[in-house]
Formats: sequence, structure tokens, C-alpha cells
Amino acid sequence: MARVLTPRAEDFPRWYQDVIAKAQLADNGPVRGTMVIRPTGYAIWERMQSEMDDRIKAAGAENAYFPLFIPESYLRREAEHVEGFSPELAVVTHGGGKQLAEPVVVRPTSETVIGEFMAKWVDSYRDLPLLLNQWANVVRWELRPRVFLRTSEFLWQEGHTAHATEADARAYARKILHEVYEDFMVGVLGIPVLVGRKTAGERFAGATNTYTLEGMMGDGKALQLGTSHELGQNFARAFDITYSSATGGVEHAWTTSWGTSTRMLGGLIMCHGDDNGLRVPPRLAPVQAYVMIVKDGEGVGEAAAKLRDALRDAGVRVGFDDRVDTPFGRRAVDAELKGYPVRVEVGPRDLAAGNAVLVRRTDGSKTPVAVPDVVKAVLGALEADQQALYDEALKLRLDRTVTVGTLAEAIEASATGWADVPWSEVGPAGEKEANGQGVTVRCLIRADGSVPDSEDEPELRAILARAY
Amino acid sequence: MARVLTPRAEDFPRWYQDVIAKAQLADNGPVRGTMVIRPTGYAIWERMQSEMDDRIKAAGAENAYFPLFIPESYLRREAEHVEGFSPELAVVTHGGGKQLAEPVVVRPTSETVIGEFMAKWVDSYRDLPLLLNQWANVVRWELRPRVFLRTSEFLWQEGHTAHATEADARAYARKILHEVYEDFMVGVLGIPVLVGRKTAGERFAGATNTYTLEGMMGDGKALQLGTSHELGQNFARAFDITYSSATGGVEHAWTTSWGTSTRMLGGLIMCHGDDNGLRVPPRLAPVQAYVMIVKDGEGVGEAAAKLRDALRDAGVRVGFDDRVDTPFGRRAVDAELKGYPVRVEVGPRDLAAGNAVLVRRTDGSKTPVAVPDVVKAVLGALEADQQALYDEALKLRLDRTVTVGTLAEAIEASATGWADVPWSEVGPAGEKEANGQGVTVRCLIRADGSVPDSEDEPELRAILARAY
Repeated sequence: MARVLTPRAEDFPRWYQDVIAKAQLADNGPVRGTMVIRPTGYAIWERMQSEMDDRIKAAGAENAYFPLFIPESYLRREAEHVEGFSPELAVVTHGGGKQLAEPVVVRPTSETVIGEFMAKWVDSYRDLPLLLNQWANVVRWELRPRVFLRTSEFLWQEGHTAHATEADARAYARKILHEVYEDFMVGVLGIPVLVGRKTAGERFAGATNTYTLEGMMGDGKALQLGTSHELGQNFARAFDITYSSATGGVEHAWTTSWGTSTRMLGGLIMCHGDDNGLRVPPRLAPVQAYVMIVKDGEGVGEAAAKLRDALRDAGVRVGFDDRVDTPFGRRAVDAELKGYPVRVEVGPRDLAAGNAVLVRRTDGSKTPVAVPDVVKAVLGALEADQQALYDEALKLRLDRTVTVGTLAEAIEASATGWADVPWSEVGPAGEKEANGQGVTVRCLIRADGSVPDSEDEPELRAILARAY
Repeated sequence: MARVLTPRAEDFPRWYQDVIAKAQLADNGPVRGTMVIRPTGYAIWERMQSEMDDRIKAAGAENAYFPLFIPESYLRREAEHVEGFSPELAVVTHGGGKQLAEPVVVRPTSETVIGEFMAKWVDSYRDLPLLLNQWANVVRWELRPRVFLRTSEFLWQEGHTAHATEADARAYARKILHEVYEDFMVGVLGIPVLVGRKTAGERFAGATNTYTLEGMMGDGKALQLGTSHELGQNFARAFDITYSSATGGVEHAWTTSWGTSTRMLGGLIMCHGDDNGLRVPPRLAPVQAYVMIVKDGEGVGEAAAKLRDALRDAGVRVGFDDRVDTPFGRRAVDAELKGYPVRVEVGPRDLAAGNAVLVRRTDGSKTPVAVPDVVKAVLGALEADQQALYDEALKLRLDRTVTVGTLAEAIEASATGWADVPWSEVGPAGEKEANGQGVTVRCLIRADGSVPDSEDEPELRAILARAY
């Protein structure tokens, strides 16, 4: 068979682009840095949205929608925020055939416009917490775009909340971090993320504290898969988000923001993909079982349709391929590329023996299964392979994370994976030195793996890596 | 009780703005013509999306995502299209701190960029039909904005399909019209839309044929709630969407597009709202039953929580209000404003008699119901009130549609409702005359109510009205 993809070991970035093209996940858009998300890729994003949205709502946040266009003046109100985003802004200067009196920016994120409305909606402590989320597109002009990872326009959810106290805001930022993001990434995406705290140098523009979830990709690099920020009272002061407290005083609120994006699609590909294409964890997969007619024959179509219906009745998300005009080999390669977790192949020869063939994408195994046992076998495979993908990713992360004692060793270890080094050996000066060599501090964690309250805690560990 | 809303009869546009503000559905955004959709409004939009999306997928279309930014040159390729949209475009001239070599427009609709990609993806007749849909924001600069009805940015779905023949394209545009749009609007939104064909003068820019669904609002005006277009080969020629046919020739495809938007929220308010606020049809409502604790008392909290859980178990979407610190009257007014179909009020006095009080938003009736019968009573009320709202809207439409014989009578009748007049009495010249007086031909229908294939069919009826 002709080589479909560049092997990962030969050229990982090329392999990544190959998978995106051959599995028909996305295309580059006509305006530099933009992307077209094709149905195969978008269906995965919809599953991500659905799983995340359930968790966001369970955490008490409500969805809303704020405008794409933000007056330039809003961004200037928070000094660090405007400094952080100015180089990436897209600016609309003409609307309805006329030059605009004040240019408007296309939102790079919505802290400012949401801050403006929180100020209108919050009056008393009874209005708090105010817990909002929106699913939207945002624009950050990219000089070195890469599909899903860095695009000038991307899709995301951004949560924005206001609280009466710093403790409430911190607790909520952490609730989202663990109960929404970590729970989804570990349990559905199957990525064993490391959850920690960003250094001051890596914080979101305008935040007082940024939490992060970092995944290891197949080449040992890190990808930031989501962040949750405490914004202190910075935006509340800039936008005058105040409330009258139970004791009658007027106080500034404490706000948070948190986001995950279509970048997770890049993480999915690079964490679980192999040399045959994408591998989608069963709990995430839009198509969990792909029933294929190998070729026509006595009772084949009927048996395949029955299996499809039986799987659907058992709650499995099923795809069905009866395109017998197209060579089976080509269709099988396409199914591998798209990473359907399980294929159920129905053909005349096996069917004559009472069997269908179960093909598992995770390990490539092919097993004849008696037709009446197919549903049970599929359910078992889906369950087992969700775990298998997670285990494989965790093993990679552990194998390629090296515990070292000095900054120099950490930078060296970052050439092939992650370095776990005492933060006291790095510090802000060492961080700058590492950055100069393309290595960043991905996060700080405590020795027991938990998330620190401050970067000044003793005995913190720093995780250093090259990153996307 | 103080007056909460301007009565409809006094000032319908003011009433509309009052409902949007008081029911907390939306706010005006900071950039002229943009809007903020608040959680109460957005939850309804999410329900619309979910119901529509199910039907779109059942019709075979797949979701995808195309870029927000479109090169200006793309729009120029289809002459009528660019002429139609040029006055409404928002133009980005600066990105990443630099002036752009070619300005990009913020999509007003995506025919052009999707046409570009259809041309790449379609090769043979086997690739057809190509059935795509996207949920996205679009921008059309509005000089006289009105929330939900005409906003500079709005949310919508836009379907785009390519077919091998004109007949296939027409059949699909009609399938969407009836099986997706009409089915949703009649069955879920509860709006008795009139389904017809637009005149040449009212067609979408670049279409060869536009189908429309028109709803009558509470003031007798019309609102276009959705459209489905045949684009002929106009975009296929402009973007070179060709396919090799089964017989080996190269042919241009036939394309369609179709859309519905957050404008439907405006239609919902103006079709079903009354002087106490919004009334949301039960099948659409994010909160179908709103369980309220009137005030604390022996066993009240427990009984209310049990009812909430029992309703949820019966598949009802339930809201719960135990904010006994806030006066009950205020909470009840708020529930009326937001249009929850059924309220279940639990208070000490009724509970002592073994009852809760069922309040139906549609007719305002209040009925004590024995606690064990509440679930059944709620289910019955939801079913009946879905029908009642539809019937009421249909009665209004029939009462306020006048069958007339001449253009002059039709224009006169349009002052208070719709006019049903022979198209032969109007024609393109009469249409222009009507337009000059603020009246438009909403659609053409056959005498039997069905949708014509051409505006040249004999004995067509024209529906004339003032419109939003």
C-alpha cells in the first residue's frame, strides 16, 4: 500500500499537517492564518462543545452572547491587557460604506466588553456571583499560523465571572479548572494533563493568577489546553464593577475568566494520533462504531443494517458505509485516517461463517465475532480503548519527563520532553534564560502534584518544556 | 401593581423594547447596532438551535465552519451579490499592527468563501450532493438597528449545498423550507407561517429563486422568519464549482443557500407576547415549569423540591425559585415577563390543604391541584398551551388578512394587517408603487396555498403587508 502519511518519527510537523489534510479535518482559509473546519473536524468540535457545555452548566454558569466588535477605547482601560493584545488586533475602520468615527477592534477576548455589562447588571451582593460563559469566535492576528494551534480566528468558550470576595473568585477559577477542564480532558479527551500555576511571566494579560492544563504531545512538546484566570480587581476597577455589600459599603467585585478552544483539536491529533492517522477516544468520538459493508453478497446489506440499528439501540454513535462502488481498501484507509474507534466489517465470507470482523483502531487488532455478540464486543472495546489511549499517553508523559536538579539540565532535557526541576533552581532570571533557548516554564506544581497558591511557596517544582 | 410594560395597544414598538429590557433578553451593545444576548434570551436561542440542528442533520446536511474574514475580491465575483451587500459591509484594514495589503470584509453571508471551497472539494458527480451548514455570526452594518430584528451583528445558521442538477437543487431548497423551517416554526415556535415565493424584486442578491416563511406579528405586520434560495449556477460559475458527470462531461453544479437567525427571537416576542410579557411555547421553552416557593413554612421547601424532581423525572425542563427573601409578587411578575409556560406555586396555605397552585402563562388561569396530580396536570397544560398559542396566532392571522381585488385596496388593507390580492393586479409595477408607500409583497402563493414554481404561473395570489 502506498504511504498515506509522513511517519511521525521522520517529520512530526509534516505528519500533523498530513493528518489534517488526509483525514479532511480542516483547510487553510483564504485570509492568512484563518481556517476552514471541515465536517469531520467540526463533528469532533461539536462533541467537545457538548461535553464541556454540560460541565459548565453543572458548575452554575449560564451562556450568553456579547458583540464581536469592541470599541478600541475599552481595551485601553486595563493597562496590561491592552499591552498584551495590541500586537494581535484586527481593526475595522469602515462600516456601511463610511469611515467609522472610532475604529472598532474584532474581539481577541471579551473581558472588556463583558466587564462593561457586568458593571450595569451588578448592583448588590445578591447579584453575585454572576457566572457567564459564551461560545464564540475570536481573532488574534498570527504571524506564524498553524491549523488548530495558532490561527488568526479560532472558536472557543470564554467564561467570565464576578464574585464578592477574592476567596470566592479563587474557588470558582479552581472549580472550573478541575471540575470542568480537567474532568473533560482526562475523562473524555483521554489526555493526562498536568494541572498547575503559571509563573508571573506566563500569566494572561491583566490576570493576577493563571492556572493551566498542559498536555504532552507525541513529540514530547507541551501544549497548553486550557487556562483559568483570577483577574483580581483589575477589570472591576477598570470597568467599575461594584456592589453594595450586606453591611452597606460599596466594594469592587473580584472577577475570573477561563477558556478552551479549537486548539484542543490540535492536542487531540498530536496526543493520540499514530502513523495511520487520528485516533479519537471513544467517549469523544462522533462516530464510535463504523459499520462497513466489505462487498455485496447474500444477506450482507441486511446483516450490516441490523448491526447498525442494534448498535444505535445500545446507545452507540454509529456510522454506516455501504459504498461498495469504492474499493474496500480505500475506505478502510479512510476510516483509519479519521480514527473511528471501532470498525465492524461485514462481508460475504465472514458472514457465511456467522461472523463480522471487529477492528479496533487503538491497537489495530482484527477479531471475528459471532454476529449476535457484536454489540457486546463493541461496547467492551469502546470502554477498554478509552482507557488504553489514556494509559498510552500517560506512559509517554512519564517516560519523557525527566527529574533534574539544575536549570542547565532542565533546558537540555527539554530537547526531547519535559523537565521537572526545583523552581528555586530556576526563578524569574532562569526563566528568562530558558526562554532565550526556546524553552518555557509550563507550570509550577507542588511536590505532591497539587496546584500552588503562590509562586513563592517553598519546594515548588517547575515543569520546563518546548511548547506549541 | 405598578405598570411594568407599555401596553401593546398604546405603543407596540415601545412594548417590544420594554419586554426585551424587563425580561432581560438582550441589551444594546456598545458599538452601534450590536447586541448583547443575555442568559434568558440566549437559553431560548440555544433551544432554537438544538431543535433546528436536529432537523438540519436529519435532512442530511453536515456542520462545518468557514472563516469570518473574506477577501474583498471574493464578493466582487458575483455581480448581483456584491451590489446587494456592498452598502452593509464592515471592512478590516489593519491586522497585527499593520495595514493589510488587501482589505478583508467581515462575512455578511458565506456564499463566496464556501463557493471557493466547494470548488476544491467537488470533483466528480459522486461528490454531490454536498450538503453543508454552519452556525455563525455575520455582520451587516445597520443604519436603523432594532434588537433581534435588524442588528449589525447577528447569529444564524446558513446552509450551503451543491447539486448535480437544477431539479435536485430545487428539491433540496424545498426540503429545507418545509421539513426543517416550516416544521420547526409551526411545530415548535408555534407560529403559523405563510410559506411562499419571493418576487424577483425581493430575491436574495444572487439567487434565481427565493422561498420565504412569513409570520404575522401582534400588530399585524409581517416578519420574514427564514429563507431558502436556489442560486442556479451563478455561484458555481463565479467560483468554478464543476464536476465530471457520469457520462464524462464537465458541468457546473447547481447551488442553494438557506438561513434563519436570532431574528426568530424577535418573531417569538412579537407573535406570542402579551401585555404581561413574553409567552414562550412549551416545546421551545428552556424552562417549561417554574416551581416557586411562595414563602417558607412547614414542609414547603421539601414539597417544592420533590415536585421539581418529579417533574424532571417526567422529562419536563424545570426552573426552581426558592428566593423567599425577595417578595413573591416581584418574583411572579418576573416569571410572567420571562414567559415560563407553567408555574407551580408551593406555599404553606395551599400545602396545608394538600395542594400546589398551577398557573398557566397562556391564559393566566390559576388552579389548585392536589400534590400527587401535579406532574400530570403540568404535562397536560404544556401540551394544551402549545396548541393554544398556535391557535391564537393563527386566528390573528386569519382575522387580519383581508382578501381584496385591487392594488389600492391591498395597500389600504396593509395599514392594519395583510392583504391577499391577485398577483395579476399587482405585478412588478404595482409592487414598486406599494414599496413607495412602505408596503411590500411578502410572497406569492398559489390559490390552494402551495408554493409556486414561477411568478409567471396564472392565478397566483400576492400577500402584501408592512414588514419588519
